Amino acid sequence: ASPIMARSPKEVEEIALGCDALALNLGTLEEDSLKAMILAGKTACLHHKPIVFDPVGVGATAFRRKAADLIINQCHPTVIKGNAAEIKALYTHQIGNAFIDSSVETLEVESIAKQLANNLNCVIVVSGPKDIITDGTQTAYVTEGHPLMARVTAMGCTATGIIGAFLAINPNSYDSALHAMQAMGLAGKRAGAISRGNGSMMINFLDELSNLQNG
Amino acid sequence: ASPIMARSPKEVEEIALGCDALALNLGTLEEDSLKAMILAGKTACLHHKPIVFDPVGVGATAFRRKAADLIINQCHPTVIKGNAAEIKALYTHQIGNAFIDSSVETLEVESIAKQLANNLNCVIVVSGPKDIITDGTQTAYVTEGHPLMARVTAMGCTATGIIGAFLAINPNSYDSALHAMQAMGLAGKRAGAISRGNGSMMINFLDELSNLQNG
Amino acid sequence: ASPIMARSPKEVEEIALGCDALALNLGTLEEDSLKAMILAGKTACLHHKPIVFDPVGVGATAFRRKAADLIINQCHPTVIKGNAAEIKALYTHQIGNAFIDSSVETLEVESIAKQLANNLNCVIVVSGPKDIITDGTQTAYVTEGHPLMARVTAMGCTATGIIGAFLAINPNSYDSALHAMQAMGLAGKRAGAISRGNGSMMINFLDELSNLQNG
Repeated sequence: ASPIMARSPKEVEEIALGCDALALNLGTLEEDSLKAMILAGKTACLHHKPIVFDPVGVGATAFRRKAADLIINQCHPTVIKGNAAEIKALYTHQIGNAFIDSSVETLEVESIAKQLANNLNCVIVVSGPKDIITDGTQTAYVTEGHPLMARVTAMGCTATGIIGAFLAINPNSYDSALHAMQAMGLAGKRAGAISRGNGSMMINFLDELSNLQNG
Repeated sequence: ASPIMARSPKEVEEIALGCDALALNLGTLEEDSLKAMILAGKTACLHHKPIVFDPVGVGATAFRRKAADLIINQCHPTVIKGNAAEIKALYTHQIGNAFIDSSVETLEVESIAKQLANNLNCVIVVSGPKDIITDGTQTAYVTEGHPLMARVTAMGCTATGIIGAFLAINPNSYDSALHAMQAMGLAGKRAGAISRGNGSMMINFLDELSNLQNG
Repeated sequence: ASPIMARSPKEVEEIALGCDALALNLGTLEEDSLKAMILAGKTACLHHKPIVFDPVGVGATAFRRKAADLIINQCHPTVIKGNAAEIKALYTHQIGNAFIDSSVETLEVESIAKQLANNLNCVIVVSGPKDIITDGTQTAYVTEGHPLMARVTAMGCTATGIIGAFLAINPNSYDSALHAMQAMGLAGKRAGAISRGNGSMMINFLDELSNLQNG
């Protein structure tokens, strides 16, 4: 994969046209970057390029909820990846106008993920000690990994990037998301076994991830 | 601690309302991020949430001096942390309208820090080989650490974040700042002893910092 | 070297006035950061401070090509550093109105670099397994390094920063660029020999780079 980062409304449509997959992320959201994400997402959607969307901290502010709503409704992400709190927030706040047929309090995150996948017609990935990957019909789990993964900043953004890389080469979005999370889990398990804290975990994880291709 | 980064005026007030402590930082300052910091700081101040302010490079430009002046006067930081040059710049340029009763050239950074702490009614932390922590009345020093700490980018920003984490759980701001700098110094000393350059220092420091809780 | 990062049009002229060398970089370009880079570059140029320019991804979008054109024509960089694709894009699109006297397809990157250096009156650095450094008359190569260097994010931006550091202390821009790339290559070779993946390469490279001064 040859990734490129861009965040100006001046160029993201051209970037989206040239890419094989697009990753959108709400981290440190700003008005201009939101505008850029929607432009890029609409272009990708129009040209049938897969989009992975990471609603970082979507439960934290109304601005992020509005942003997630715009991105979901206007760009139709192929995969949405979040932790349990983020996926629940999408559901609770009816982001993307997901139809809600029971109280969120009584629902496990897995059934929420399945309903979101069905209602938004996409793959939902819930990251956690036990990752859940579902398209509403099929559901898979990834339990490999390591507790230190949750303590490394940007580990979630890394998963989103890796899902994007798999989407770029595999038209099956459910398989792409599953394979990406399996790669994350395997690299995390191997890295965790030889790390002594947050710093070495970050580095060992990058080493293991880059060496997965070698078997 | 569960930190979240935000820099849009569209959401920082809501973020500040929901947090237990706020960290403001002048690094790569922009007009919009300054506006966001002031909004967040005013909200935090109004709701009695502690604020730590890091006047990164405040001596370098008039724009940063003006920004520091606005933040200090409008947000009343609980703790201000800088290196000796930054703390001296706050003093020399009368930022926050600190009363100046003698020539800065003849003053040691410790007496400058004490006067600033008294005049601005906050805790001042001067980072360096010998950290100074003062509220104008009490003064403490942290001499643990390692010379490699000064060569790792964002080590100062890390200290600011750690002070914020301590402020979030301890209403005594002087103790919070002192304990944070002691944690930094101990992690730095341990990391420095096993590092062979800037890169391994960064990683070993993160390892040691994340393992401090384990004794 | 004491580097400072800035990207607001409000302060970059003052920053440029106070620095010994300026590094400009098209990564995640935005309208405001472009405006800031041009202001900083014009100030540096007017005061005879050396400028190193890194046209990151200049072939990817019209926005980046326009930005590179403005920076080259208005700021007259002392050194331009890119990979082969970026240097070819500068040439092909006549950025800086470089005179083009033959089809780019038939030209090797080395002759393109020499023509650009002559036409733009600057030093061109082409990074790759074999780095090319040329001022149009003299040409040098750096073959030291390691394949893992190409897999570490921001390695190119690091080279640009290191060239800037050398420019700040050496008025001979050709020598500065050459010495910077030699330092990169030596650190990369040493780091690559002891690294097992992308993560450890990044850290070992920073270690080796920081230890070069020790012989």
